[in-house]
Amino acid sequence: MLRTHSCGELRSEHVGQRVTLCGWVDTYRDHGRTLFVDLRDRYGKTQIVFGPDCSAASFETASTLRPEFVVQVTGNVAHRPEGTVNLKLSTGEIEVRAESVELLNRSLVPPFYPSQTGEELPGEDLRLKYRYLDLRRPEMQQTLLLRHRMIKRMRDYADELGFLEVETPMLGRSTPEGARDYLVPSRIQQGCFYALPQSPQLYKQILMVAGYDRYIQVARCFRDEDLRADRQPEFTQLDLEMSFVGMDDVMGVVEGMMARLAKEILGLELALPLPRMTYDEAMERFGHDAPDLRFGMEIVDLTDLARECDFRVFRAAAESGQRVRGLCAPGAAGRYSRKAIDELTTWIVQDFGAKGLAWFKVEQGGTLSAPIAKNFSAEMLRRIGQRFGAAPGDFLLIVADRFETTCKALYGLRKRLGAELKLYDPSQMHFSWVVEFPMFAWVEAENCWTAMHHPFTAPRPQDRELLKTDPGKCRAQAYDLVINGSEAGGGTIRIHDQRLQQEVFGLLGIAPEQARERFGFLLEALQFGAPPHGGIALGIDRLVMLFGGLESIRDCIAFPKTQRATDLMTGAPGEVDPVQLRELGIRIAK
Amino acid sequence: MLRTHSCGELRSEHVGQRVTLCGWVDTYRDHGRTLFVDLRDRYGKTQIVFGPDCSAASFETASTLRPEFVVQVTGNVAHRPEGTVNLKLSTGEIEVRAESVELLNRSLVPPFYPSQTGEELPGEDLRLKYRYLDLRRPEMQQTLLLRHRMIKRMRDYADELGFLEVETPMLGRSTPEGARDYLVPSRIQQGCFYALPQSPQLYKQILMVAGYDRYIQVARCFRDEDLRADRQPEFTQLDLEMSFVGMDDVMGVVEGMMARLAKEILGLELALPLPRMTYDEAMERFGHDAPDLRFGMEIVDLTDLARECDFRVFRAAAESGQRVRGLCAPGAAGRYSRKAIDELTTWIVQDFGAKGLAWFKVEQGGTLSAPIAKNFSAEMLRRIGQRFGAAPGDFLLIVADRFETTCKALYGLRKRLGAELKLYDPSQMHFSWVVEFPMFAWVEAENCWTAMHHPFTAPRPQDRELLKTDPGKCRAQAYDLVINGSEAGGGTIRIHDQRLQQEVFGLLGIAPEQARERFGFLLEALQFGAPPHGGIALGIDRLVMLFGGLESIRDCIAFPKTQRATDLMTGAPGEVDPVQLRELGIRIAK
Repeated sequence: MLRTHSCGELRSEHVGQRVTLCGWVDTYRDHGRTLFVDLRDRYGKTQIVFGPDCSAASFETASTLRPEFVVQVTGNVAHRPEGTVNLKLSTGEIEVRAESVELLNRSLVPPFYPSQTGEELPGEDLRLKYRYLDLRRPEMQQTLLLRHRMIKRMRDYADELGFLEVETPMLGRSTPEGARDYLVPSRIQQGCFYALPQSPQLYKQILMVAGYDRYIQVARCFRDEDLRADRQPEFTQLDLEMSFVGMDDVMGVVEGMMARLAKEILGLELALPLPRMTYDEAMERFGHDAPDLRFGMEIVDLTDLARECDFRVFRAAAESGQRVRGLCAPGAAGRYSRKAIDELTTWIVQDFGAKGLAWFKVEQGGTLSAPIAKNFSAEMLRRIGQRFGAAPGDFLLIVADRFETTCKALYGLRKRLGAELKLYDPSQMHFSWVVEFPMFAWVEAENCWTAMHHPFTAPRPQDRELLKTDPGKCRAQAYDLVINGSEAGGGTIRIHDQRLQQEVFGLLGIAPEQARERFGFLLEALQFGAPPHGGIALGIDRLVMLFGGLESIRDCIAFPKTQRATDLMTGAPGEVDPVQLRELGIRIAK
Repeated sequence: MLRTHSCGELRSEHVGQRVTLCGWVDTYRDHGRTLFVDLRDRYGKTQIVFGPDCSAASFETASTLRPEFVVQVTGNVAHRPEGTVNLKLSTGEIEVRAESVELLNRSLVPPFYPSQTGEELPGEDLRLKYRYLDLRRPEMQQTLLLRHRMIKRMRDYADELGFLEVETPMLGRSTPEGARDYLVPSRIQQGCFYALPQSPQLYKQILMVAGYDRYIQVARCFRDEDLRADRQPEFTQLDLEMSFVGMDDVMGVVEGMMARLAKEILGLELALPLPRMTYDEAMERFGHDAPDLRFGMEIVDLTDLARECDFRVFRAAAESGQRVRGLCAPGAAGRYSRKAIDELTTWIVQDFGAKGLAWFKVEQGGTLSAPIAKNFSAEMLRRIGQRFGAAPGDFLLIVADRFETTCKALYGLRKRLGAELKLYDPSQMHFSWVVEFPMFAWVEAENCWTAMHHPFTAPRPQDRELLKTDPGKCRAQAYDLVINGSEAGGGTIRIHDQRLQQEVFGLLGIAPEQARERFGFLLEALQFGAPPHGGIALGIDRLVMLFGGLESIRDCIAFPKTQRATDLMTGAPGEVDPVQLRELGIRIAK
């Protein structure tokens, strides 16, 4: 090694030792006869003093140093002079009095510095273009260290439980189900293509058929979708599958893993088992299948009152089978001006397709006031206030619409107001499960059922007959892990019976011929002794974001892509040599 | 869980316990009133007895069982009757007397059974098509378990040393250097392509520039090459990089890792440091840069003798600057008939381009006999025998040719004879390093230099000037890990100086414009404070093959591809929907 110690290592007990450090010049101060350099590496910073101990040649070299130059310094560890000890720094009690310095490499003046934070940070495009500089920032280094530690601990935990990590292929078969595949042209079989995996789903089921019993993989997955803010074309999931299990077994393994992570990474004790809620309950209470349970402000149903009230909008909704539901924002009446409420209304209408937003403010004494209050009897207003459990100063927001629309609108409102009103501590972590998802969702536009999770999900045994009679009521053996209002992972017990699998394909409008074409090998495998099995996939990028308290998924990934799926550092994707395309037997369409 | 124990778990101490097991029917024996089933899972086999304890309904179910059916059995653990204990089986002292059985799934009659081994195994194509059955074979399960344990231990070791695992992108930029890239068309930027990584080389160097200091990754890599027997289009490497290091530091880390693996996986103590040999020495002594050091039979040089001898072929070769070199196969004179020698000669000529093969057998008394012996004086024959250290019964094989041809031919001969003559114990493991590779190899056909390793490799400091004066003599800071005659990994110290990197690109015929186009981001990164760094990549598939004593790389991979790069189970690559191609803006060339 070109060093004896790292820049984060020296303490008082090293005083008197001769050491050699390597690192980057973080700051540089010229006090004339003495030069001070903070030398930085991944492990910390150490103050270097170029003074009387330093050879003349080395002093001259030192005086040419600039930020981000790379140097090797040899010197003696000394106590810092009284009054200059820096207890905020782990190395703050000592300094290294340099005898010699070797310039290992220079740096151009960088477009930004690793010490920049918050507002001083340049725009993300510049950060991504010079990712090697951006990755020097201590925040980024802490995040990638966190990521490493989390994944290491997940693997250790699974290993202790007898899980085998098995690598499944990246060059697979295109099964146009769910999202769009990334394709890879084959050179040897021209006109044919591989697909990059959207997940190792079929392979892990095959591994269960093959008797591997407990499988995990930290798996790279790909989806060629139009990117939303928190999506990446390639992402990493902890993929897990077990044989001879029910839902509780898979959930138990994941709970143990989360408890281990929470304890070892965050120092938190998770109470197990984690709370569970059915999908239906989640939609009723929170309007969403991944509710943020760090705070209350649950959805309150007024449909029965609406049916009795004089306000036409409410009554018409209730009578036509729609729903009237609302939220009670505690103590928020004074916070939202008419203008702010108008803005909320516009947002609700435009972003969630609601017809409007009704509201009341709760006055001293408990009466509800609002322009629409005149449409309600005093008694009805009292009953509405009572239904909400409203107290003076509260702000009531109500949506009357189709059930799905009230869910979306109130979920959006609850999320926004929860943050604006600081109803929770952002550093708090809340883990829970949502279970018993519907097997199918009806796609109006295409007049067919689609799988809520994926087509390999098993129905609850007691709902088996509903497949034939009322598929929309059929509930799946499905479970989503929810952390702070984010879906951190989703799993199901799978179908292990070939006939049942065919039946579900049939319901999804996949003809037997098509099923054989796309999933033939799975259907065949199910006929050769497939065990009952199930599993889950956890989004690792998301987990790191949640554990790190970060805002952007791109900050959890070393080399992320932009929303145009571009790597600004390398310029990928790029043009290629026509020879390459000729060899692959493909042409770019004009 | 549907079981209380696995099929490999029950021992005498469980006798009297009521247990539930799940697994596959391995064997089924019908003794009329009693049925015996060996129930199998990943963990072992347990004998189940359906007899008097069994309910009538369950006995009926049991009598319908066939191999590979999946069942759940509940019963009581009992000692096996005297005389039926099977000490070869870990569960061989007990049996489970079934009370009830649940048929979890049936199986069609499989095309082959997991118990088949060796000669009974079907052809590989059938095994690959029904990979889920093939993966049930205990040998395959042991191999994937070995793979899991090896990778787990490599990660643990690196983690203890402070290495961070960082995931680098799969969707990267095509840099047509070395092998052919797999391309991925971009939908959002039509006409542009991503490339799957041939290795994370540039990203790991960027991570060093970014200050990550110690990086590892178990990385999937891709090469679109015409496949040789031991190559796969996608493969896995342990990728490692360190900053502020020299060769010895990287080699030391890898040696420690290998010692750990050897001890924990094989129970072997590796003596460290591992032996080292320069590239030049390896070529002289073994004709190859990855010599098998489990046995001797080194190459002996006769060029000086050849120059003095009367045999025209030898003398002409020696006088024209070629080489005359040979092997002494101990005690092998009696093993090779004239016909066998003719066959060896044909092989040497056809496969390695040698002009021929000269040979002698060493008679009792030490004289050399062969048809060509008459062309040599008795004294010269004595000196040749002496040079080989030959003893009666030895077999001498000699090639006179260009140096490279003698290397290839004698490497081939040594490898073949070493195996045929059983000169080593195939279960023995030998680890060593080959170092100081040439920086460049001259490509006659293209009249240019090519990089022996890759274009980012640093020359030895003392050879820096040779870049300008005699590049062919310039030696690299390069090191290959060699196990049992296989290259298990290769690494180098990298260039961290941008001007030196440009100079090496220049020597390789990469014009500045081209260099900027292909590697611009690396060249730029080197200007912003790149530390000295180096690393290595170890072939994990290969390592598993060597540690497992396996013959084929395909047996080390769960879902391998054939030499036509086809997955026989899924049928990948396959045809895709024209809509998919239209969205990507590509067409299949007619």
